[in-house]
Amino acid sequence: MKRYTILALVFFYTSLFAQHPIAYLTKADVGVVKTGLTREGLLKASFRDVKQSVDKWIGKDIDVPIPKDPAGGYTHEQHKANYILMFNSSLMYQLSGDTKYALLVKKLFLKYAALNPTLQNHPQATSSSPGRIFWQALNDANWLVYTGLAFDCIHDYLTPAERQLIADGAFKPEVDFFTINLKDWFNLIHNHAVWACAGVGIVGIATDNAHYLDMALHGTALDDKTGFLANIDGLFSPDGYYTEGPYYVRYAILPFYLFANALNNQQPTLKVFQRRNNVLQKALVNGLQQTNLNGGFYSYNDALKEKSFISNEIVEALSIAWKVYGADSSLLPVAKQQNRVTLSKGGADVALALAMSKNIAAFYPYKPISFTDGAKGNEGGVSILRTGGSEQLTSLIFKYSAHGLSHGHYDKLNIILYDGGNEILQDYGAARFIGIEQKYGGRYLPESKNYAAQTIAHNTVVVDETSHYNGKEDLSQKYHPEKLFSNSSNGKVQVISAIDDKAYGDVTLHRTVWMLQLPDASKPLTVDFFRLLSSKQHQYDLPFQYLGTVINTSFKYQAFTNSQTTLGAKSGYQFLWKEASAKASNALTQFTFLNNKTYYTISSYTDDSTNLFFTRLGANDPNFNLRRDPAYVIRKKGANQTFVNVVEIHGSYDTNNEVSVNAYSKVENITILRDDEAYLIAQISINKKLLVVAQSNKNVAANTKHTVKINGTDAHWVGPYTVIYDHQILQ
Amino acid sequence: MKRYTILALVFFYTSLFAQHPIAYLTKADVGVVKTGLTREGLLKASFRDVKQSVDKWIGKDIDVPIPKDPAGGYTHEQHKANYILMFNSSLMYQLSGDTKYALLVKKLFLKYAALNPTLQNHPQATSSSPGRIFWQALNDANWLVYTGLAFDCIHDYLTPAERQLIADGAFKPEVDFFTINLKDWFNLIHNHAVWACAGVGIVGIATDNAHYLDMALHGTALDDKTGFLANIDGLFSPDGYYTEGPYYVRYAILPFYLFANALNNQQPTLKVFQRRNNVLQKALVNGLQQTNLNGGFYSYNDALKEKSFISNEIVEALSIAWKVYGADSSLLPVAKQQNRVTLSKGGADVALALAMSKNIAAFYPYKPISFTDGAKGNEGGVSILRTGGSEQLTSLIFKYSAHGLSHGHYDKLNIILYDGGNEILQDYGAARFIGIEQKYGGRYLPESKNYAAQTIAHNTVVVDETSHYNGKEDLSQKYHPEKLFSNSSNGKVQVISAIDDKAYGDVTLHRTVWMLQLPDASKPLTVDFFRLLSSKQHQYDLPFQYLGTVINTSFKYQAFTNSQTTLGAKSGYQFLWKEASAKASNALTQFTFLNNKTYYTISSYTDDSTNLFFTRLGANDPNFNLRRDPAYVIRKKGANQTFVNVVEIHGSYDTNNEVSVNAYSKVENITILRDDEAYLIAQISINKKLLVVAQSNKNVAANTKHTVKINGTDAHWVGPYTVIYDHQILQ
Repeated sequence: MKRYTILALVFFYTSLFAQHPIAYLTKADVGVVKTGLTREGLLKASFRDVKQSVDKWIGKDIDVPIPKDPAGGYTHEQHKANYILMFNSSLMYQLSGDTKYALLVKKLFLKYAALNPTLQNHPQATSSSPGRIFWQALNDANWLVYTGLAFDCIHDYLTPAERQLIADGAFKPEVDFFTINLKDWFNLIHNHAVWACAGVGIVGIATDNAHYLDMALHGTALDDKTGFLANIDGLFSPDGYYTEGPYYVRYAILPFYLFANALNNQQPTLKVFQRRNNVLQKALVNGLQQTNLNGGFYSYNDALKEKSFISNEIVEALSIAWKVYGADSSLLPVAKQQNRVTLSKGGADVALALAMSKNIAAFYPYKPISFTDGAKGNEGGVSILRTGGSEQLTSLIFKYSAHGLSHGHYDKLNIILYDGGNEILQDYGAARFIGIEQKYGGRYLPESKNYAAQTIAHNTVVVDETSHYNGKEDLSQKYHPEKLFSNSSNGKVQVISAIDDKAYGDVTLHRTVWMLQLPDASKPLTVDFFRLLSSKQHQYDLPFQYLGTVINTSFKYQAFTNSQTTLGAKSGYQFLWKEASAKASNALTQFTFLNNKTYYTISSYTDDSTNLFFTRLGANDPNFNLRRDPAYVIRKKGANQTFVNVVEIHGSYDTNNEVSVNAYSKVENITILRDDEAYLIAQISINKKLLVVAQSNKNVAANTKHTVKINGTDAHWVGPYTVIYDHQILQ
Repeated sequence: MKRYTILALVFFYTSLFAQHPIAYLTKADVGVVKTGLTREGLLKASFRDVKQSVDKWIGKDIDVPIPKDPAGGYTHEQHKANYILMFNSSLMYQLSGDTKYALLVKKLFLKYAALNPTLQNHPQATSSSPGRIFWQALNDANWLVYTGLAFDCIHDYLTPAERQLIADGAFKPEVDFFTINLKDWFNLIHNHAVWACAGVGIVGIATDNAHYLDMALHGTALDDKTGFLANIDGLFSPDGYYTEGPYYVRYAILPFYLFANALNNQQPTLKVFQRRNNVLQKALVNGLQQTNLNGGFYSYNDALKEKSFISNEIVEALSIAWKVYGADSSLLPVAKQQNRVTLSKGGADVALALAMSKNIAAFYPYKPISFTDGAKGNEGGVSILRTGGSEQLTSLIFKYSAHGLSHGHYDKLNIILYDGGNEILQDYGAARFIGIEQKYGGRYLPESKNYAAQTIAHNTVVVDETSHYNGKEDLSQKYHPEKLFSNSSNGKVQVISAIDDKAYGDVTLHRTVWMLQLPDASKPLTVDFFRLLSSKQHQYDLPFQYLGTVINTSFKYQAFTNSQTTLGAKSGYQFLWKEASAKASNALTQFTFLNNKTYYTISSYTDDSTNLFFTRLGANDPNFNLRRDPAYVIRKKGANQTFVNVVEIHGSYDTNNEVSVNAYSKVENITILRDDEAYLIAQISINKKLLVVAQSNKNVAANTKHTVKINGTDAHWVGPYTVIYDHQILQ
């Protein structure tokens, strides 16, 4: 009986694993790329770059040092350079047939086969998932992915004995480490686990090891509660929204796509790219929708602003998507800006499409869009209201998603505003200098959790100087706001409304933002209702993380000119210098700033209990880890309180001609006509006309008819809101 | 006798003034432009833009309001728009022959002819040279220049009676105001006077008024002590360095060129463009040499950083220079970036050259260069040390010029560093939001004199927290530093040394900076000797206005994390928050920062009496008029003191690949081998080699032979300095 089993397994192995290369590209793909290389163009240029980066190492003795340094240090960077070199050289071998490239890879593999069995936890390991070659296991997983792909490409060049030596020496210690020592980490639903599964799975395919592949796909228990497929099912919402946010979908999409591509070559019947109605395609497309005009990923949750869609991960994903989902011309503006393609069938096809296409748009086709969060799509979401095309695009992001795992922030009902490619109301992102050893080994800085993740670092209300969920991840991870209503189908009135009654014990947060395109304005107007409901007295701070230069204010303030202290002592407040403060009056309060060449005015409904602050980051930051960014904070006190704010984009400043146009706000007054359990109705005088914005607070059904007295006259509308401008319903 | 004189004058008038147009372009020029417009290209595109801007006003009643508002306000912007429109419409008339354009100009002129005689000083006038149409006379001069050119273009369209009406009503009140009421201002040697003379002179040519032209050329006393020619002679050094600095040469070059061009058409025998060996050509070319890679004018003296050579003034000057000095292909990169040309013969020729030229360089051909200051070239100067080509350009500016009139700063022996188009050690420039009414009417802000002009805002030594010349312009205007020696002919060793014994009563400032290209480095190394000589005890602060993110320091510092106070109380110190301070030790002191994607390290020779500060702008700035820029200040105390600093450009940070290369300084030690009346010799250990930099403090003759013991061995050299690297003289 046992003998039969072994025979069956052997048969299984040979039938499934006979062909190499198969992980990154197939023999047929190699042919397509070789044909593509006969043409001048982006494929050939990309090939030349890779070849040049590899050729300078041919014949040299390449260092495989004993791991010692943190990120940014020598041994870290050397091992990172090695796996990229091994991958690239293995591709050169496939595309040129020249064995010098395979020899380079083999020699490095033999060094790793000697080194890896000797390794214990990295001396710089500080995380709960320590690495061996690197300070954290995540980097070891990166190593496995690339060296696995490299092994597959030189598989047929190696003798069976060499293959065995490398599989046992270079790969097995890492795979065992992941699947035994770090089993809990390997079995997470999290981007780290995606990398780990991709690494183990690709090595499985490359070394014809079905057990590795099984663990990678189905988790170490082989029960599909964890593993790669469970991560595809668990990390994305049905729309492809990745719960950690756009910066991390950029990162995670690479192992998702690389491993899925290998699987698709090797087990096409698994239809991994079709899983959950093409969720991996949606992940890419919707990741791109979450970028700014310059390609930078929106910086909510932990994010570094300098990352854009020209990064390697998106180059790879785009090429693979082109191959498996078919040509998609909307991706060409992205590919053009990337200005390189991968050396694969998809890359060859993208390069050809770029060469054949005339008039490629300057920008990705951004549109108003909403995503649900959560594997089932029932954990809140993110909406992006948008108007204007090309460089005139204005995007207002409203975030009512779930926490977003370990990289989430305490930012329920946050808004972020981009205009014409500039950040106007920013999300700080994360505090980290990735790859810079001197800055805390390139790791997330303490200020990232202590400031950047805190509520005050966002554009949403902080109650009693305490972050949402008191800054507790385990608590925040359990809940999410609920969307009340939205409309992005009407270009003139886009709206999104959501409520959260869990972020604070006894306070309910209810926010609605409208992006209104008034007929006599060139840019959209943002109207922002923020209701706070509580039976107890609280302090409510609504910060606006504006970026720009203070131009003027409608109020007098006290500036702290000779000495400065902090805005508070905790929840991120300790990082904010109080530059100025003011007491508002029973009147319209306005603040105008200049960003790049456009004016922005925040007009606020205030009363004489409202306080205002100008703050500046940098307090309690002895290591200069935070940018010195400003904020404008509106503080109200009370039990129930309502903020009504209008954000206006207006005018222009031409520095070369020294001309300023429409530098003054056109908002003349804001009054609240009604604010009770049933309705919130505000009236805004703008440009000598009246704008009335009304919402139903309770009954948000789409078909409910409402009749409400507004300014003494019965107004009628259907659905959760209405917007009336100059006595006409705006639509 | 009297009758003969009158006859002679009449003859003079008719012979000189018969032809119109002649001021901006001649009839022959019009023919060239018309021919140029038959081709597609930049001329035609520029024509289309101008035509479009004019056409929308044809047939409309254009407002000529009663002057009321400051810069940025409605009446200011309307009058500004009017003179540009009149000029452009008059060109359209010449180029199309369509009288609707001339009619538009005439109608506006008739409104001004009614308005101008009624005007008294502008209600917002605050300066000693008040305007009438505008808040300051300078803007009235701009108005005269453009409307004078416009009048000339429609001269032949107007009836003699209309000409008289406009000359008497629109022009005469302004000309009389300038030459009688503001005579002292009109007769200055200053950019305002250049504009005023250009305005009166162009109106003289346009209205056939020889007296106007005479006053413009020779001053109201007609004695050539003032007037346009005296300004050409007085404001430029023989090399064409403009004493107010690059930002203002950009501004002044327009009236210089426009009036000179009109004169050249009307009195070619005056050879105004050849005056002082083509000093106006040198002014343009050397103005361009004083720009950054992005075209931005260097920001020393009062300057707004956003001004670049794409501004209208340089577009006009470039076109005229091309016509009068001949084709110059080195100007094409500038013209290409300007992306428009003037509607003139020069503009047509530049457009044609752009169309015919292949491979126009991406950047202006920057080179190491020195300028003298002062009309006779004997009032110090500015040197720019440079290495690297194209985007690798590094420029180190050393300023030892005279004060620079009313826009000068207290910045003797200041240095400024640009690298790869980025400002690394900045000059703040001026504090002003030109054209923004809310920001102090668009005028220079008080912080401009109080902070930006003060010594602490620069990269040079402040003694006892008091600016050079105690911040007194009249005093500073009298003196200038003396250059001791320089060399920019040796690419590996560029050097400039100067001394100043007037900025402080009893302290002599002596600074030498070297830009060294070491054989094993890709970027130049700056070595900076700053000697302070005094018989009394003083405090010496050397600030580095670095731009970038703090990466690390070699020293421990105390950060003021919970409360902040200012660095001092006066001389600009009151605007600086003290973010951190440290006591140095008897050792090398290093500070590394990251700017864009490059690391920079300042390595300093310090002892245990040296103090260090990190500062941040923003204190005592209640109106948010200053940028929140950082500085690093090295403080020494004593009678004689010497600063030796090394500024290193090293490594790179690749945010997309998250890789940091050479992020650490290679400087290991700095010692002073000798520091006395005769010599200053420093030894820098770098990259495990020795760099010895030696200067003669007293005998700086080029042919003097020196023999000095260095590290126990006699070193021999000729001239004021030597640089020895790895035991070889660097050359």
